[in-house]
Order: sequence, then structure tokens, then C-alpha cells
Amino acid sequence: MSSYAAPLRDLRFVLEELLENRSLQLPEYQELTEDLITAILDEAARLAGEVWAPLNRRGDEQGCRLVEGEVRTPAGFAEAYRAFVEGGWNGIGSDSVHGGQGLPEVVASAVQEMWQAANMALALCPLLTAGAVEALAQHGSEALKARYLEKLVSGEWTGTMNLTEPQAGSDLSQVRTRAIPEGEHYRISGQKIFITWGEHDCADNIIHLVLARLPDAAEGNRGISLFLVPKFRVDEQGSLGERNDVNCVSLEHKLGIHGSPTCVLSFGEHEGAIGYLVGEPGRGLQHMFTMMNAARHKVGIQGIGVAERAYQQARGYAAERVQGHTPEARGGRSAVLSEHYDVRRMLLSMRARLEALRALALLSASEMDRARHASTADERQRAQQRVDLYTPVVKAFSTDQAVDIASLGIQVHGGMGYIEETGAAQHLRDARIAPIYEGTNGIQALDLAGRKIYRDGGTALSGVLDEVAACADALTADTELAELGVSLHQGVVDLRRAVAIVLARGDDAERGPDALQALATPLLALTGHVLCAWQMGRAALIAQAALVTGDDDAFYRAKLASADFVLRQWLPIGRAQLAAIEADPGAFDEAW
Amino acid sequence: MSSYAAPLRDLRFVLEELLENRSLQLPEYQELTEDLITAILDEAARLAGEVWAPLNRRGDEQGCRLVEGEVRTPAGFAEAYRAFVEGGWNGIGSDSVHGGQGLPEVVASAVQEMWQAANMALALCPLLTAGAVEALAQHGSEALKARYLEKLVSGEWTGTMNLTEPQAGSDLSQVRTRAIPEGEHYRISGQKIFITWGEHDCADNIIHLVLARLPDAAEGNRGISLFLVPKFRVDEQGSLGERNDVNCVSLEHKLGIHGSPTCVLSFGEHEGAIGYLVGEPGRGLQHMFTMMNAARHKVGIQGIGVAERAYQQARGYAAERVQGHTPEARGGRSAVLSEHYDVRRMLLSMRARLEALRALALLSASEMDRARHASTADERQRAQQRVDLYTPVVKAFSTDQAVDIASLGIQVHGGMGYIEETGAAQHLRDARIAPIYEGTNGIQALDLAGRKIYRDGGTALSGVLDEVAACADALTADTELAELGVSLHQGVVDLRRAVAIVLARGDDAERGPDALQALATPLLALTGHVLCAWQMGRAALIAQAALVTGDDDAFYRAKLASADFVLRQWLPIGRAQLAAIEADPGAFDEAW
Repeated sequence: MSSYAAPLRDLRFVLEELLENRSLQLPEYQELTEDLITAILDEAARLAGEVWAPLNRRGDEQGCRLVEGEVRTPAGFAEAYRAFVEGGWNGIGSDSVHGGQGLPEVVASAVQEMWQAANMALALCPLLTAGAVEALAQHGSEALKARYLEKLVSGEWTGTMNLTEPQAGSDLSQVRTRAIPEGEHYRISGQKIFITWGEHDCADNIIHLVLARLPDAAEGNRGISLFLVPKFRVDEQGSLGERNDVNCVSLEHKLGIHGSPTCVLSFGEHEGAIGYLVGEPGRGLQHMFTMMNAARHKVGIQGIGVAERAYQQARGYAAERVQGHTPEARGGRSAVLSEHYDVRRMLLSMRARLEALRALALLSASEMDRARHASTADERQRAQQRVDLYTPVVKAFSTDQAVDIASLGIQVHGGMGYIEETGAAQHLRDARIAPIYEGTNGIQALDLAGRKIYRDGGTALSGVLDEVAACADALTADTELAELGVSLHQGVVDLRRAVAIVLARGDDAERGPDALQALATPLLALTGHVLCAWQMGRAALIAQAALVTGDDDAFYRAKLASADFVLRQWLPIGRAQLAAIEADPGAFDEAW
Repeated sequence: MSSYAAPLRDLRFVLEELLENRSLQLPEYQELTEDLITAILDEAARLAGEVWAPLNRRGDEQGCRLVEGEVRTPAGFAEAYRAFVEGGWNGIGSDSVHGGQGLPEVVASAVQEMWQAANMALALCPLLTAGAVEALAQHGSEALKARYLEKLVSGEWTGTMNLTEPQAGSDLSQVRTRAIPEGEHYRISGQKIFITWGEHDCADNIIHLVLARLPDAAEGNRGISLFLVPKFRVDEQGSLGERNDVNCVSLEHKLGIHGSPTCVLSFGEHEGAIGYLVGEPGRGLQHMFTMMNAARHKVGIQGIGVAERAYQQARGYAAERVQGHTPEARGGRSAVLSEHYDVRRMLLSMRARLEALRALALLSASEMDRARHASTADERQRAQQRVDLYTPVVKAFSTDQAVDIASLGIQVHGGMGYIEETGAAQHLRDARIAPIYEGTNGIQALDLAGRKIYRDGGTALSGVLDEVAACADALTADTELAELGVSLHQGVVDLRRAVAIVLARGDDAERGPDALQALATPLLALTGHVLCAWQMGRAALIAQAALVTGDDDAFYRAKLASADFVLRQWLPIGRAQLAAIEADPGAFDEAW
């Protein structure tokens, strides 16, 4: 079984050098120090590596079982989750008003990667809870918050998102679950599917956030409201009472994340599940998007985590497995896999992409910190625009790449990679869900093309591209890095051209939405490539400067190799997406 | 469960229009007619669709079991295999001298795709038998041929390839299995792993072809010989005798192809398994490569088959699943998935790539027919060069693409794609082995760069590129297709540049093998892209001409859409590999 060691050195490089501890400079975080954050990362790495990671394979093998309506998670999961809660990890990103640690999102995100890498199936549980916390904190009444929030923040109770129904997947306007008013609460009835951690034995209570329709609700999106439905009712003193009328009727048999119970939940088979309105009637979808956006960012990080795990496992195997010989020029002796250049190419491709994706995800997290806590409204608004722009890219690009990286991890293993006991295949099976849930990557691409680029006339992205161009100039001015600068500049030119196409196509009154949809996915890929290349261009400048000082040379030389790969070998593949962006959407007119 | 209908229209387009029935013009096949071949394809399609395909999902669910040394294959597999043997399908490509049908390889390959698509796990059994037939026919003594060949050709008995040992994977020089002479035969002892269909209940006997060392053998590759080891001994009258000392000691638990037993075989646990030398002592690897090359071609086709199955399932789901609405400009009504342009993009990407890969694989098969049966030695040699060049590309490029296409098939399904019962995930799990076995795709790339391009000074590929350039010219001369021609021409320029780099790097005395290895995989990808684009360019010319006649317009319009996608959207991604080919191999010098 493979072990996992959190990439602490690289996480600290991103936080301290690439992001220059920017979140720590916000007034909110004056009391935080770099040392404290280092200590937090070290401690999280220990729990992730020593407690969570060893359970990952067993969780896959055992999976979850439904026994008389109750879900039994794999052996050790409940204890591992408890250790996480007792360590105070569940609430590290939550507001201290609600009992959280109130740490910056950039730190919470760095730690998040560790849970996802160590045990993606288990890490999904707190990922969903965090979304519930966010929705409740922002939209719940004071009474609801008083009763539920603290225990969700601590992780003593867990949360779920109940959106999907058999007929309502990407199109939530088709939700049919009903909520009938009854005094101060509602009676909820309907069936929800694909409910992650919808029922389990790791916590005392489960707080479901459920999309449903009031009796007089309008058709479509505007008729959907958000309700809180606890598994066990909670009295005014916070004690657990009766079991609510919500039941897990079956578990899905999935390709991966076997340790994460994916439930079909039936609400109101008997008297109707008691639920409470969260926020305003008819604004359920908007409120749910509060959860969704946070969750999308985290799913992007999840992709990075599982891909990092796949990379570590492949690197470890390649360093030990003897096969073939080095060429005469390198001694002609018996060699381990990682001495072969084709294997090195695979490992470098995995590592370099991971570093780039990590840098982008943490950049986005740092903008979340600014969006919440920057001193001026202008700064906050500008940061929020960046978050809005980056989120679909972090979600979709990281997860698409994660699937490819995990697949390459199998390839490095050769035949052993196809054998389940090796564990390499699990990472591909686990990773494969990430491009699908929390909004498919196709939905993310529509969001990017329509809401995030077309709707603001490309302003937010153009602002970013000015910074990317400045980075390209800085690289070009450095003799050693000039070729990286040339390459990055070409990426900027291509993405600017793509933005112009988006604006033109979106203005096409007749074909508008179709025209944007036809180019959305290649546009997202190009955007992801350019943003990743930008971060690695910045990393190259930092690494080049650090090499002069002579400290930790091996790390900075490896960083330069990663940057060189990303800018000169990987970015061109992203730029090739421009051909698909430019293609006539008429190519898709015929029915299939 | 998904059904499967062989893509008969497209197969006939490739055979009749794209390849212009060229194999039928060879003297060997004078008696074959287009009608007869159509009838053969129709009949195979029926068996594949009606008998093999419905067992595919069940085979995955049930898997194989080892019971007291005997393997039980999934319910229905033995009967389905028997129907295949009784239909005479096993030997359709084998020489009539040995009881085969002696059909052209191009027909056998077209039919091969159907078995692989219908039931990849079951289709592996005859795939391996075909390799054993080839090795035995070419290298076996008359006595061995007389005793074993006919029943292997008919499929009454099946064959295996026993290469891998725990310490000998890609590097077969490490094989340790021993063969001790004893009168007219040998006693074989050792352990082989990853033996596909090494033990099963679908045929009366299993003929193992085994790499082993004679007592006085040299170290390394030159000390390896090839032996035939039957599961049951066969007497002079061809009757089955005693059980030989070869046993299945365990089955692998794999990511996919659960219906195909992957065995650990132990030879000579007791008195030593009786085996017979095939060909010359010390030339076992060369003889095994006879099997390997045929098998590599078939594994490429397997990739196409499983990807076609994934495509059909995704297309079927997308045509039925209602989700979302069309834009106002297209009516604003409730829509099925395939009305959304992002889904159409995915489906077109799957279909177009499949058509291109199929055309390339069948082109290679047609060169095999010429290599065997062309009138002059020159023609045969020239054709063989093409086969040698195309084989690693067909194997590696088709299977890498197959993994991606099967993964996209999951994505089209959204959340349902991740649920095993849907069956979409099985295709990804099944497809994932194809880039690994019969020589990993990295090994294929080394073969292409070193043996197939560098060693002949790029002559064979340059000859092909002259034809690709002529196709580009023809496209450019057609007003409707001019842009496709421009794009194809750019591909030719890039691949010529890559060839020049291969020749220069290979001549670098110091770094030679490393320098080629560093660029081999991107080189193979670029080559695959250009060859596929060439075939689709030719297809576009034919389709454009056919549209003038007005027959079967829908097919030819779809073909033009596929060609447009391949040449203008997909080829640029292949061309982006040039950056990696040009990269300094020093990027990989540091250890990992």
C-alpha cells in the first residue's frame, strides 16, 4: 500500500513565496504568523499521513453497507473522522463567531488538499459539511444558526447537499420534492439521489440541506426553496430527539470513492420529514449556490489531492522497480524505472501539472480571503470578481487534469498498475467523479464563458491577462527565462483572441447561447492552461532568484524544471484549443 | 444495459471507398467479391451484437473464479465462444492450408473490431490464440504443426503467450523459467504472471507458448527460447492425454476485463511440464515477436472496439435523457442531452476520432495483405515497411485515445456514468489495460522512434508523408475543403521537422538512446495525429464527391463533419506535441 506525505515544501513555497503571505497582511489576520501556519500545516500533514491515508485502500475494498436503513462505513473511518473533529480541523476555515478557527481560506485550502489526498472518500464528508455551514451562516435565521451551526462547524454533526432527483440533474428547475407548511416548520416529501454521505455512522446527527417546492411555488427555478432537514430532531436545548422521516433506501454501486456512501434518500415516506426554511422562499437555488461555489473550489482541490497521491505512488514505484538498463553512455547498468527517460517524462508531466494547479487553486483561495477581508469595498469587489472567474477553472481544469494524471500513474506502474491491490487504479476510479459532481465540467465551462467572461465584457479576465503579460515581460527580460516569457506571451495572445471570440459570439442574437456552448469547454481548457502557466512563470522568476542565494537548490532547480515543462511543453497543448474555439459552431448543428 | 450494433456502414466505407477494395485486387483474393465480404461482415455483426454483446456487463459483474485449480468463466461465455468457433470465425484470417478461411487481414480486422466492441474480455481469448497460430505456423516444426495447428486455427483449442515473470516485464531479458532437455521434449519449470486466458473452461485444451532458458543458455535476450506447452498432452492421433504439469495458482483482481482470466501459471511444480521447442534455440524472443506484432495490431483494434462501444452507449443515452432546454432561438423547449452543443461536441469528438483510428488501423491491415500477397518482392517489402511503421502507432495511439474516449463516454452520462450498473464505467475500466499490455505504449513509442524511424533514416515515414502532402494538395485544390488542406499541410511540415529531430538526436553518440526516449511518446502522438488526419482528409475528398451524386447524403455529410473536426480541431492538438519533441532532453537528466 502506498503512503502519503503532504507536499509541505511546495505548499509553503506557494503560500510564502508565490503568494507572499498576502492573506496574512489583511487586517483580519494580523495575529497570524508564518510560523503558526507552518505548525498548522505540519500537524495536518501528520493526521493525514498517519491516520487517514492508511485507511484509503481499505475504504475502497470494504466500501459502505446499508444495514436496516443505517449505513456502515469502512472499518476505521468513524475513528479517523473523530480524530479530525477532535483536532479542530473541521472548522479551521469557519468564522470564529460560529466556533471556527477563522483561519484564512488559503490555509484551509492547503490543508484541504491533504485530506483529499490522504482519503478522498472520507474527506468528502467534511467537504459537504463545509457547504452546509456556509449556506446556513449566510442565509439561515438566527434561531436555525443557534441550533445547528456550532455543531456543524465543529464537525460533531455533518451536513449534506440534497439537490439531484432522478429527473433533475444538471437542470435543477425540474426538482419535484415538496414542502408543505405546518406551523413553524414544513413537511418535506420526495426522493433525492446521489446524496454524498447522506447517511453514515461517523457522527451523531446529519443535517440535510434540501431543495424543494412550496405548494404555491412557480414552475422552474424560481419556485425552489431551501430547507434544513435534520436526521434527528433537535430540541431547544440542543439535545437530539426523535428520528426524522428521512431514510436511506439504497446505496449506489460506484466506479470509485467506495468509502463514501452515495445515498438515495427518501423524505416523508410516512408523516413527512420535518424541515425548516433556510433564507427566502423561492431563492433556494441562489442559496444553494453559496454552498456550490465553495464546494466547487474544494472539488478542484480534491482533484489536486488525489492526483498528488497518484503521483507520489507512481514516483515511489518507479524509484524501486528494477527493469531494463541505462544506455551505455550512462553506465549500461541495471536500472530502476525512474532512470528511463520516458518514465521521467511521465513523472515530470504529473509533478509539473500538479504544482501549477496547486498554485492556481491557492491563488483563488487567497482572493477569497481578500474578497472577505480587504480594507476597501473596491478591493473586495475586485477580489470577488477574481474568485468568480477562477472558481469554474479551478474546479473543471484541476479535475480533468486529475483524471489524466491518475491514469498516467497507472501507466508508470505497467502491468502492476492494472492490478487493484497495487492501489494505483483506485486513484483513477476515485478521481473520475470529480469532473462530474458539483456541476459537471461542461456546466463549469458554460459558467466561465457566459457568466464570467461574456457578461462582464471580458473585463475581469482582461485584467488578469494584463498581469500575465507583465509576468511574460519579466520572464523575457531574464536571459535564462526568456523562452518561457515568449511562450507565455503567446498564451496571452491566444486567450485574448478567445475572449474576443466569446464577446462576438455571445452578441450573435440568433445563435448566442449555442455559439458560446460550442466553444465553452475548449475555452475553459485554454484559460486553465494560461492561468497555470502564469503561476509557473511567476514561480520560475522566484526560483531563479532563489538559486542565487544557494539555499535549497534542489527544490528550486526542480521548480524551474516544472516551470519549463509547463510553459514550453504543456502550454502549447492548451493553445491548440484555440482552433476549437475558432471553429464554426455550425459544426454541431446536426442532430446526433 | 447498452446494446451494440457494429458500425457496418463505416466499416464498408473504409474497405470499399477509402481503401478501394485494394486487398481484393491481390492475386490471392481474386475469388472474393465485395458482396461476399458484406455478407461476412453482416453475419459477424449479428453474432457480436446478439450473442456476445449481451454478456459483456454480466462478464464484468461475475468475473472469473478459480476453483480447485480450474477457472470458471462468467455464465454464457463458454457457449458464446462455442458459437464463435462453430461459425468458423476463429480462423477467418488464417491460411487455408491450416484450415483457416484465408480471408484478407483487412476483413479479419474489421470483424475483429466487432468482437472487441461486443465483449472485450471474451475477445481476448481468440486474440491470443491468433498469436499462437502465427508463431507456430511460422516457426514450428512440421510435427508440431501437424499436431496442434488445425485445432488452434478452428478455435477448438486456445493459445496463450507466456512472457512476463515477476522480475521480467518490459525487460524480457530477465526471464528465468527453465527448460531441461529430456529426449525429444523438455521439462519446463518456472512461474509466469499476467497470462491472459491462461486457464479457462471454454475449450478442451490450452496451448501455452512459453519463453524459457535452456540449461547452457547465454544471459540476456539471446539465451531465451520458445516452447509449446499444452495443458493436456496430445498423442499422435491427436487425442487428449494426461494433464501436463502446468497449473493456475491464482487469478489477478483487476481494474477491468473481469471476464478475462488473468492467471499466474506455475510450470513444473511436480515433475516439470512437458514442452516442445518452437523454432531455433536462443531465438525465442524473435519468434515471440511474430506473435507480438500481430497482437499489437489487434490490441489497437481492441481500443477502437471498446471506444466504439462507449460511443454508442453515450450516444444512446444522450438521445434519450431529457435535461434542460434548447435556447430560445431553437424553440426553448425541453431538450434531450444531445441537443446541447457541449454534449454534441463530446459526441462528435468521440465519433470523429473513432472513424479516423478505424481508417488508419484498416489501412495498416491492408498493407499486411500486400506484404503477404503482392505480386513483386518490391511491393511486398514496401508494404511490410508500412506495416512495421504503422503497427506501434495503431497499437499505442488507438489505445490512448480509447481511454480518453471511454472516459468522455462517462462524462456524457453525467452522474449516471459513475454508477456501475449503467455500464459506461466498465468501458473505461476495460480500455485502461490496452495501453499497458502487448508492450506498454512507451515501448511502442521507443519502437517507432528507434527502429521504425531512426534506423531507416526516416525513409519509410518520409514516403508516407509524400502521400499525405499529396492529399493535402488535393484538399487545398477543392474550394470547399481548402482549409482542411491547409491544416493537413501544417501537420506534414511538423512531422517532417520531428523526423529531422529524431535523426539528429539519434546520431548524438553520447546521449542517443536517452535523447530518442525523451521525445518518443510525443513523437508517436504527433505521428498518430497526422496519419489519422491524412485518412480523414482522404475520406473528406471521397465524401465531397459522393455528395454530388446525392446517395446516402446523411452519411457523407456526417463524414465531412468528422473530417472537419479531425483536421481542424483535433490535429492542432497533435501538432502541439512538436514543442515537447523539440525540448532539450536535458530536462529529464535529473533523477526523480
